[in-house]
Amino acid sequence: MAFTVSSALDLVQSAIRVGAERGIQVAAAVVDAGGRLLASARSENSGFVNLTIAERKAVAAINFKAPTHGVLDMIKADPILLGAVTTEPSLCVLPGGFPIVVSGVVVGALGLAGGHYMQDQAVGEEVLKMGPKG
Amino acid sequence: MAFTVSSALDLVQSAIRVGAERGIQVAAAVVDAGGRLLASARSENSGFVNLTIAERKAVAAINFKAPTHGVLDMIKADPILLGAVTTEPSLCVLPGGFPIVVSGVVVGALGLAGGHYMQDQAVGEEVLKMGPKG
Amino acid sequence: MAFTVSSALDLVQSAIRVGAERGIQVAAAVVDAGGRLLASARSENSGFVNLTIAERKAVAAINFKAPTHGVLDMIKADPILLGAVTTEPSLCVLPGGFPIVVSGVVVGALGLAGGHYMQDQAVGEEVLKMGPKG
Amino acid sequence: MAFTVSSALDLVQSAIRVGAERGIQVAAAVVDAGGRLLASARSENSGFVNLTIAERKAVAAINFKAPTHGVLDMIKADPILLGAVTTEPSLCVLPGGFPIVVSGVVVGALGLAGGHYMQDQAVGEEVLKMGPKG
Repeated sequence: MAFTVSSALDLVQSAIRVGAERGIQVAAAVVDAGGRLLASARSENSGFVNLTIAERKAVAAINFKAPTHGVLDMIKADPILLGAVTTEPSLCVLPGGFPIVVSGVVVGALGLAGGHYMQDQAVGEEVLKMGPKG
Repeated sequence: MAFTVSSALDLVQSAIRVGAERGIQVAAAVVDAGGRLLASARSENSGFVNLTIAERKAVAAINFKAPTHGVLDMIKADPILLGAVTTEPSLCVLPGGFPIVVSGVVVGALGLAGGHYMQDQAVGEEVLKMGPKG
Repeated sequence: MAFTVSSALDLVQSAIRVGAERGIQVAAAVVDAGGRLLASARSENSGFVNLTIAERKAVAAINFKAPTHGVLDMIKADPILLGAVTTEPSLCVLPGGFPIVVSGVVVGALGLAGGHYMQDQAVGEEVLKMGPKG
Repeated sequence: MAFTVSSALDLVQSAIRVGAERGIQVAAAVVDAGGRLLASARSENSGFVNLTIAERKAVAAINFKAPTHGVLDMIKADPILLGAVTTEPSLCVLPGGFPIVVSGVVVGALGLAGGHYMQDQAVGEEVLKMGPKG
């Protein structure tokens, strides 16, 4: 199933709006099933590096086909594995990265950064609950 | 003057819509005055490298504070200079990059890729004529 | 507000001089509001990587709009977050990075490296107390 | 012979000042004998990529122990060689890079960018004629 740029932009805009409602300056990125950027944006008050981090979280989520907080939970007890994964420049497994599932198929991933990672995760969960048209 | 993510997303969405009306699968990127990505998106049918090219055109436009087709016109008669500029990995001076001017101040830049560069330029000119709320 | 190269060079030179008075071989970098290098220099006896570190501290300070020691204080109790931030190649949150504020506006950032990070922080605080013309 | 940061900063400042007198927004970089950055600055009106280009010209000058315009003259008739050198990301052989010679010894190099390369070369020649204390 193709995931459209329109849906990707909906998710990015929802993420920035939900973040703003909570006082968080969000950066959000959506990648396709190949881990390639489809849409991204950051609040003009969000540091520019946040957009890089958001994309890395999305890439991690599509790579592992799992939310980054789940990946982190699986590896955090093993310092060797944790060290290897957290120093891989293409990925970021801090909470805030989520596969996007449509009709049971992983079609892409959403990454968020800008708040504390627990906030990023909460914003992402709310955004994905609303669906792409939220 | 701050350039908002909302205006940046308006430009990106207009670019994709205007491109689609012309049968072009556009990738579009908006950077702030410091050349840092604010918003970007590509049609799901546009090659993923197009988004990189779009961002490089936007960075070139903000760096030179001139449209990329103007920069190219100034350097294209000199193969040495052309070679140097076209191999600089942070920039792309193919037509399709434009400074964004608000109240006489350059607040950012828009870059487009995905069609022939003459099409990218034409789409960008139409988008900027409509203004950020187009 | 524009931050001039002349002010940026004043800060860099003050940093090297204050460092030398304390026996520290300082590298110093000033970036503009977009996190782009405006001026940099290192003592000829300071390792060349120090200049890279100084720039990364300045980029971190402008990205977070906070001194790097403040950023570090917020994240150092959380090894996961600390690991993620300290492996981000564009940033360095070791003490010694400072936003430069003129008339209440963050116009750029100063980063210092070359001594122990507590020394880098102390030199930077003295330099910024003197102001750009110090 | 050690080349001091003070001499390097003198050259950088002279380059910016001489450029300004000619209406050119100069970026200038000085590297040491190992090709490592010692000092750099750009006019606040000079595009940020110019500083990267200036450093690459300085690295080319120290690598070849010759001015970049001389290197270019030697290779420009050979498209294979020209292509190879001009696509090497660490170097830029456009005119405007110069070895710095003290008492017959190459101690570093100066690179300039921001104007047309013939202007960059002319500014550099004037700066080096004045010597580091100019």
